[in-house]
Amino acid sequence: MISIAVIGLGNVGSHLYNAFKKVSNISVTQLNSRHLKDTSDFDIAIIAVSDDAITEVSKQVNTPLVVHTSGSAGMAELQNKSRKGVFYPLQTFTKDTIVDFDRIPICIEAENDQDLKLLEKLVAFISDRIFHISSEQRKSIHVSAVFVNNFVNHMYTMAESICKEHNVPFQILHPLIEETVNKIKTIRPIEAQTGPAKRNDIKTIQKHLDLLNQQQQEIYIKLTESIQVYGKKL
Amino acid sequence: MISIAVIGLGNVGSHLYNAFKKVSNISVTQLNSRHLKDTSDFDIAIIAVSDDAITEVSKQVNTPLVVHTSGSAGMAELQNKSRKGVFYPLQTFTKDTIVDFDRIPICIEAENDQDLKLLEKLVAFISDRIFHISSEQRKSIHVSAVFVNNFVNHMYTMAESICKEHNVPFQILHPLIEETVNKIKTIRPIEAQTGPAKRNDIKTIQKHLDLLNQQQQEIYIKLTESIQVYGKKL
Repeated sequence: MISIAVIGLGNVGSHLYNAFKKVSNISVTQLNSRHLKDTSDFDIAIIAVSDDAITEVSKQVNTPLVVHTSGSAGMAELQNKSRKGVFYPLQTFTKDTIVDFDRIPICIEAENDQDLKLLEKLVAFISDRIFHISSEQRKSIHVSAVFVNNFVNHMYTMAESICKEHNVPFQILHPLIEETVNKIKTIRPIEAQTGPAKRNDIKTIQKHLDLLNQQQQEIYIKLTESIQVYGKKL
Repeated sequence: MISIAVIGLGNVGSHLYNAFKKVSNISVTQLNSRHLKDTSDFDIAIIAVSDDAITEVSKQVNTPLVVHTSGSAGMAELQNKSRKGVFYPLQTFTKDTIVDFDRIPICIEAENDQDLKLLEKLVAFISDRIFHISSEQRKSIHVSAVFVNNFVNHMYTMAESICKEHNVPFQILHPLIEETVNKIKTIRPIEAQTGPAKRNDIKTIQKHLDLLNQQQQEIYIKLTESIQVYGKKL
């Protein structure tokens, strides 16, 4: 039996707590980061708080092994006196949405092989996608995630607002959105690139710009230029 | 029996030809746009050529009804003497990839109700997603498609190159990419927006910028600003 304290009541903490709760070989407790009493009864503390609070919270934790769940904080931001590690689930979590951990990549890091083995064991209980990732690599994953999640979602937001202005249902774009994702499962994204920017089709680009407001135009021009720069690197 | 001439040997023409070939009530022929002899034997010509060539090709076509398949060309760019329409399948087509037309939205437009009915019939043979879309609306769909397909794919390209620089397998991002698409099936993209731009988390934004090259930084800053502008409109 491994006993885990999940520290933090946010989305990541709650989803991890729910995932471990289902595992018979694990006993798990969720704790508020502001009311940490004695944590020395647990084997592992998983700190799932905002990046800014990791250092402060870790100072109050007494478990033999302390890990945080952040994509952008280094392992060294933990200031507990015991051993340190990272347990970073690479997914976007929403409150009240059921998460199937099975397919979520979990990036682990530890100071020694024994702890790495322990974290591997922990991952195996909830997911079959384990990755050994250094703090430096993890930072690059975190910024990449901004591109494929935050920025992609913003592209959807802009498209939805263009559709709305012209009384077109946004749902009409769903099959195209899905196919865009499907394509990169078999070919590299740079090879999947199509469209007026890639073709340097000035006439179509101009037609598009004529339909857009100033903010949309700025994004359109910037991304068109960027596609062309990447195209030359191919 | 409806007889169709698909004009153009590119991706759209070939995929439409293959889709109609399977329909027992339709006879379909694919023609090279440069060798148009007599087309008056057909009921409908579907011109699937580059936007620039639509006007020239349409002048040589003699079918009672002529439609083009372009997202950005107006119906009026057709210069045939007979009736005109549009038959725009909203999807990204790749050579040698099998396309399941069933779920592809097809946007139709015609000069009169009778032709619109005929085009509806045509769509029904290959897809269950029919949309009546004006030339003006279609142009807005076409530019929206650039955002959700071309620009989104470019985000994937940038993320892949960041991963590569840090020896991280791009596949680690696939579950996040899929979840990003799944979210907007149930909530509006603007409501699904998360991340440092949305939270105005300056520390994390600065950490990210430190990891990027100049071109990546410019895109990151531009899109971060844009997310914040849209956030204020909410």
